[in-house]
Amino acid sequence: LWGYNGQSPGPTIEAVEGDKVRIFVTNRLPENTAVHWHGQLVPNGMDGVGGLTQPHIPPGKTFVYEFILQKSGTFMYHPHSDEMVQMAMGMMGFFVVHPRDPAFRRVDRDFVFLLNAFDIEAGSYVPKVNTMTDFNLWCWNSRVFPGIDPLVVRQGDRVRVRFGNLTMTNHPIHMHGYDFKVSCTDGGWVPEAAAWPEVSVDCAVGQMRAFDFVADRPGDWAIHCHKSHHTMNAMGHSVRT
Amino acid sequence: LWGYNGQSPGPTIEAVEGDKVRIFVTNRLPENTAVHWHGQLVPNGMDGVGGLTQPHIPPGKTFVYEFILQKSGTFMYHPHSDEMVQMAMGMMGFFVVHPRDPAFRRVDRDFVFLLNAFDIEAGSYVPKVNTMTDFNLWCWNSRVFPGIDPLVVRQGDRVRVRFGNLTMTNHPIHMHGYDFKVSCTDGGWVPEAAAWPEVSVDCAVGQMRAFDFVADRPGDWAIHCHKSHHTMNAMGHSVRT
Amino acid sequence: LWGYNGQSPGPTIEAVEGDKVRIFVTNRLPENTAVHWHGQLVPNGMDGVGGLTQPHIPPGKTFVYEFILQKSGTFMYHPHSDEMVQMAMGMMGFFVVHPRDPAFRRVDRDFVFLLNAFDIEAGSYVPKVNTMTDFNLWCWNSRVFPGIDPLVVRQGDRVRVRFGNLTMTNHPIHMHGYDFKVSCTDGGWVPEAAAWPEVSVDCAVGQMRAFDFVADRPGDWAIHCHKSHHTMNAMGHSVRT
Repeated sequence: LWGYNGQSPGPTIEAVEGDKVRIFVTNRLPENTAVHWHGQLVPNGMDGVGGLTQPHIPPGKTFVYEFILQKSGTFMYHPHSDEMVQMAMGMMGFFVVHPRDPAFRRVDRDFVFLLNAFDIEAGSYVPKVNTMTDFNLWCWNSRVFPGIDPLVVRQGDRVRVRFGNLTMTNHPIHMHGYDFKVSCTDGGWVPEAAAWPEVSVDCAVGQMRAFDFVADRPGDWAIHCHKSHHTMNAMGHSVRT
Repeated sequence: LWGYNGQSPGPTIEAVEGDKVRIFVTNRLPENTAVHWHGQLVPNGMDGVGGLTQPHIPPGKTFVYEFILQKSGTFMYHPHSDEMVQMAMGMMGFFVVHPRDPAFRRVDRDFVFLLNAFDIEAGSYVPKVNTMTDFNLWCWNSRVFPGIDPLVVRQGDRVRVRFGNLTMTNHPIHMHGYDFKVSCTDGGWVPEAAAWPEVSVDCAVGQMRAFDFVADRPGDWAIHCHKSHHTMNAMGHSVRT
Repeated sequence: LWGYNGQSPGPTIEAVEGDKVRIFVTNRLPENTAVHWHGQLVPNGMDGVGGLTQPHIPPGKTFVYEFILQKSGTFMYHPHSDEMVQMAMGMMGFFVVHPRDPAFRRVDRDFVFLLNAFDIEAGSYVPKVNTMTDFNLWCWNSRVFPGIDPLVVRQGDRVRVRFGNLTMTNHPIHMHGYDFKVSCTDGGWVPEAAAWPEVSVDCAVGQMRAFDFVADRPGDWAIHCHKSHHTMNAMGHSVRT
């Protein structure tokens, strides 16, 4: 499997609106790569589409991305170079930009996860990356249940759960015990008046969603994709006190 | 096939906001079960996730669910215990909670249907419940066209159509002759200012949607999932006078 | 492959809100057909559901559709007669109705595309129309990348991109360089206060979406479906100056 800085998902990058960031990407893969900063407003040459807005980064070479974070929100990074293979091998990561005003839609706990999928035969370490649609491992942050930690929060905490989908199909994420509203997409903050009450948020491929709620109902509450074969493959759960 | 009270979908439970309900579930299946009250705000111990918030209900045993209906809306119930098999066998039902104020978003006709799917070989009564994605019967309330009754309404009636999706893929429900807005999800009532005009409402797995319209355009109008293989498997139609 | 007026997609019909249109459909297929005016408010007898609201149009015969365009927006036409086969053979087209008031949500450039899919074996001209879900060519306006023209606009132009989905699965359309809002569905204009900021718009089967933005960020920006196997099958890109 492949990743960033030796892990999949790669490290979650956190910064503040208005920051200028400089990111060195050294390619240690056996093939070209490039990094797309999904959802961010960046100059064209920093957008990371290999062969269109920049040359591919060859094996062994380094490319430096530099841009100013023009807006806060929920973003991700992933390759835009042989992406069918590279995403199927695990290359992706989260990029959270916090608002300059710390009071803006403030939460006490902030969780992130990427939905990803692999097509791996029993006994093999290498996924079959060219498969069209028959992925068989549905993961949260490249991990499957029961190897997923609960999201532990204190009663009364204001909680945000952010997620993005890099599988090959929609995932409707259902949380028990609460109804809630989407606060943010990879495009920006959803005005409260435009948000819908939900208990299952459908997240299409390449989309990101965050929802907020106040954890005022104690107990162990399940959170999972509602497609029943996925539920039974990879379900996380959250514990409150 | 399996169901509730000998039918699939199970009986539609109708009650009023603020009611306290007590529901006896006796398990006559050959395996454990448990019932999740999808979309409702219930105490943790009543949420029906077998092995997490309650012990599974063994064959032959009864579990009593009791809770207060904290909000009106469009909900459903389904197993949260071996759900991959039990939903594929037909276990699911509707739960409509009417507003305490009868004038709140009042309609004259109110239809419900669950979208469900089965993988059944010709000549067999037993679906292949472990199939990953190859369902082959797309149903409305466990029935296929032309065995689906038309939704008959009077001209000028205010009509609500509520539906939930327990298949394994999104279903975009398209109604002819009208545009309309979503009034309600399984999370609650959509504020009118936040609703979008639609002619096809995409319903992800585990989601529920209701849309309202005034039946002022006479004629036979088709209503169906817009995926063309599904359209030709199971299409309902509505007749007006 | 089949089409309208010898092409797939058929010609884009453009007219103005309030116009009365008369459309002659002569069937030169080897089987019955009928045309549904998706998203338009039409009299029941003009709705084009073969066998329900009109007799099928037999081979060699002509049917005349006539109706008044009651609202502006983004619509399409497609068969509602053996649609599983006829849409898989390429029959579909766009229908844009411009507002009577030319200042209403005015744009400088207006692009349309239909997402469609074919299941064609190498070396064959005839798709396998009965396949359940295994389409293998993902197209924009029946064309695949790199045979798709860039969408060329001037810096500062107000741009609208309209699209509809007649494949068999959701397509999340992701545009680089910008965030934007959905302005219009096949149901009508989305009030600005109800729209969400997005960078990827999920379009379910049978849905149509338009999004608007001001092209103030120069460069070549990619626009594509975010499902990675689709990205690498058919990606368009837009050039600005």
